[in-house]
Amino acid sequence: MTFQPPRGTRDFLPAEMIRRDFVFAVMKTVFERYGFDPVETPAFESWDLLARKGGGGDAVRDEAYYFKDKSGREMGLRFDLTVPLGRVVASNPQLPKPFKRYHMGRVWRYDNPQAGRYREFWQADADVVGSQSLDAEAECLAVAVTILEELGFRKFTVRLNSRKILQGLAEVAGLKTEDVPKAMRALDKLGKAGEKDVLREMKAAGIQAFKAERLLGMVRPGAGGRSGLRAMLRATKGAGEYTKVREGLDELESVMRKCRAYGTARRMAMDFSLVRGLDYYTGPIFEISVPPGRSGKGMGSVAGGGRYDGLVEAFGGSWTPAVGISMGVERIIELMEAGGMFRLPATRAEIYVLPVEDASREPAVGICQSLRKGGVNCQTDLMGRNLKRQLEYADKAGIPYVMFVGAKELGSGRFVVKDMRKKLQTEITLPRLLKAFRDRKDLPGIKVG
Amino acid sequence: MTFQPPRGTRDFLPAEMIRRDFVFAVMKTVFERYGFDPVETPAFESWDLLARKGGGGDAVRDEAYYFKDKSGREMGLRFDLTVPLGRVVASNPQLPKPFKRYHMGRVWRYDNPQAGRYREFWQADADVVGSQSLDAEAECLAVAVTILEELGFRKFTVRLNSRKILQGLAEVAGLKTEDVPKAMRALDKLGKAGEKDVLREMKAAGIQAFKAERLLGMVRPGAGGRSGLRAMLRATKGAGEYTKVREGLDELESVMRKCRAYGTARRMAMDFSLVRGLDYYTGPIFEISVPPGRSGKGMGSVAGGGRYDGLVEAFGGSWTPAVGISMGVERIIELMEAGGMFRLPATRAEIYVLPVEDASREPAVGICQSLRKGGVNCQTDLMGRNLKRQLEYADKAGIPYVMFVGAKELGSGRFVVKDMRKKLQTEITLPRLLKAFRDRKDLPGIKVG
Repeated sequence: MTFQPPRGTRDFLPAEMIRRDFVFAVMKTVFERYGFDPVETPAFESWDLLARKGGGGDAVRDEAYYFKDKSGREMGLRFDLTVPLGRVVASNPQLPKPFKRYHMGRVWRYDNPQAGRYREFWQADADVVGSQSLDAEAECLAVAVTILEELGFRKFTVRLNSRKILQGLAEVAGLKTEDVPKAMRALDKLGKAGEKDVLREMKAAGIQAFKAERLLGMVRPGAGGRSGLRAMLRATKGAGEYTKVREGLDELESVMRKCRAYGTARRMAMDFSLVRGLDYYTGPIFEISVPPGRSGKGMGSVAGGGRYDGLVEAFGGSWTPAVGISMGVERIIELMEAGGMFRLPATRAEIYVLPVEDASREPAVGICQSLRKGGVNCQTDLMGRNLKRQLEYADKAGIPYVMFVGAKELGSGRFVVKDMRKKLQTEITLPRLLKAFRDRKDLPGIKVG
Repeated sequence: MTFQPPRGTRDFLPAEMIRRDFVFAVMKTVFERYGFDPVETPAFESWDLLARKGGGGDAVRDEAYYFKDKSGREMGLRFDLTVPLGRVVASNPQLPKPFKRYHMGRVWRYDNPQAGRYREFWQADADVVGSQSLDAEAECLAVAVTILEELGFRKFTVRLNSRKILQGLAEVAGLKTEDVPKAMRALDKLGKAGEKDVLREMKAAGIQAFKAERLLGMVRPGAGGRSGLRAMLRATKGAGEYTKVREGLDELESVMRKCRAYGTARRMAMDFSLVRGLDYYTGPIFEISVPPGRSGKGMGSVAGGGRYDGLVEAFGGSWTPAVGISMGVERIIELMEAGGMFRLPATRAEIYVLPVEDASREPAVGICQSLRKGGVNCQTDLMGRNLKRQLEYADKAGIPYVMFVGAKELGSGRFVVKDMRKKLQTEITLPRLLKAFRDRKDLPGIKVG
């Protein structure tokens, strides 16, 4: 059992790693297109920092890996990429604002491993730090939508809500201030647990039944949504207790208008029951879900985020507005696997250069070096194998092409290249082969790359 | 002080991260050219595995970060990428051989932080698992040499030795078998500590002075090197105690011959005093050093590796020959910084699209979206700033071009684009700008990309 990775963690062998690399490369490209720059931070942080208020809520903190270093300092493995961002911004006031950074990296939570949940997993976050404008929300939404589109997702929706609306409706429903977080935690389970359980949890938390029902009646999907809420606001015009609701809705409508310029508005829908777990959100919040696909697996949220204007200050920096979105890397990859969305080889090697006899081993290495200089990924024999066993290896390893190198070929300068999948072959010179790979054009009888 | 990263760890802000990304991208490209495929493993492993014999020697194990998870299981952060490789190979016997994998990732050692040494640092390893042939050594050497060349290093040398030669010479010098590892540990310090200290350490370890001196006399650089050793072997022809030395030297000469086909032979030099710290090497070992550069900083080794045929078996797998090379990522980056070898911008954003008045904010977003679709990294205002403050931001952020979007420009379809470094500007249509970025060709008056 020692040879398995620790519970809840995984080894990624080449075929899987090539798919993960592809996903990260697409994310990196899109983040950078939107003007976000890369950042990296340590895997562990001082426990004091991780446990600080605003840092992700009790639930997450309880799941953090804790240890003492050899000087007795208390440390913890990071459980998200937002806490490190808060620290970095608090300690680097010189950074020009907006500070637009992306961060792709692993985080750790001592959760119960189950389908799609791991103790070590990867996140990919983009955050705009320093902007109070709702333009920042529209941009975070656009970067996430573009990533999903570039990865090949067609159907997905972005649900929007605002903490101001939630807070405001809770007040309108008559909840005491100290009861609002409890109501939020209960509401957060609406999608999974259903209304009965949510009401029961609110009652158990000491919230009167009629208030809980009133709140639920206003936020439940199907309660009229945006137009229903607008109608309510018109009917209660001037009523002071609706101010926060009105402000939140105005903001969301403004975000949706801004999304038009980004070409992402058609994806957006308001959902006043959306809560999102973390305590630190202060304004608009959002979550992207992919509907159950061909595989029948409904994986729920693939990305989520929102505005959290107080976090940097909680870490001792100055008050700093911020908005971010976090991509659920593991769920995205699982959905892509389940939906057959990857079209990638099992190895990065493109061609196997096969010496047909011992005398052509050295020339085969020379040919490999020419191919490598020309940007082609190749392998040759490192095992002293004969022709047949080399072919078996190339086949088993999934290398798409094999080039045969023997005395005759070296004399004529023309080499047989075999397409291992289609069982086609052609004869070609090294310069023409290099050119075909460079242009990624088909050879006679052979499709390259 | 909470706002600093933990002692011995670092935050990487964008300008530095862009340089690190560049180094990793070059390494990844070269690894894949040579037919190595990517692998990733968990950050932590069971303590039992890390502490297993052969796993990097006591010294490294003592530096490992240790913790207990919430079920009381003993864990440790990985201190190298070779132990995880041993576990992966032992637990995946189905992998086709040779298994050529590369692994770029962070490792942790509770070392005393000092210049160029960190408690959290990155390694980049390539290993050939399953081959007994010295072709594997030649290929590992070629991949490391190519990486250094592609990164822009010109002068560097690869020192080669063999554990068989070291072991054999120690026996010829009359050392007892149990004293050989102690002698190796002492010899390992020759470069830093000098001969006196090495002799003193050997004596302190119970090795008789004349034996220690005899061993040192045979391995010291300048003791005749390869030709000196060959002469000694000729003179002692048939003497059985030289068998191991002869075998080791034959192997090294074969490796050097093989390096000719790779075009790397001119970099190679034998150095019989080279030990390399880790206990698990069994055959050829190698180390690449860069001479002190313009900065005067001699950083010593930038890469090292060797053959370790016993490691996978030590982890419970079957006997599996293996050779690997590990790139010292942090040292390489420091040398490149010190030598001014990076020619990279401080941001990945290529152009700032500047709305000159509020009415052009929405069209500016539309232009950004067109640029992004065309593969150009761009930013626009997310702060509601006026023209002057936007220009200041673009300048401070180091964005090389600014494109002005106003009513006039939107009407004519011709936009002023300013080169922020050269203070040049031109007027251009959006399609022509896109084409210039796509071709990375210069615009009239402007150099692109």
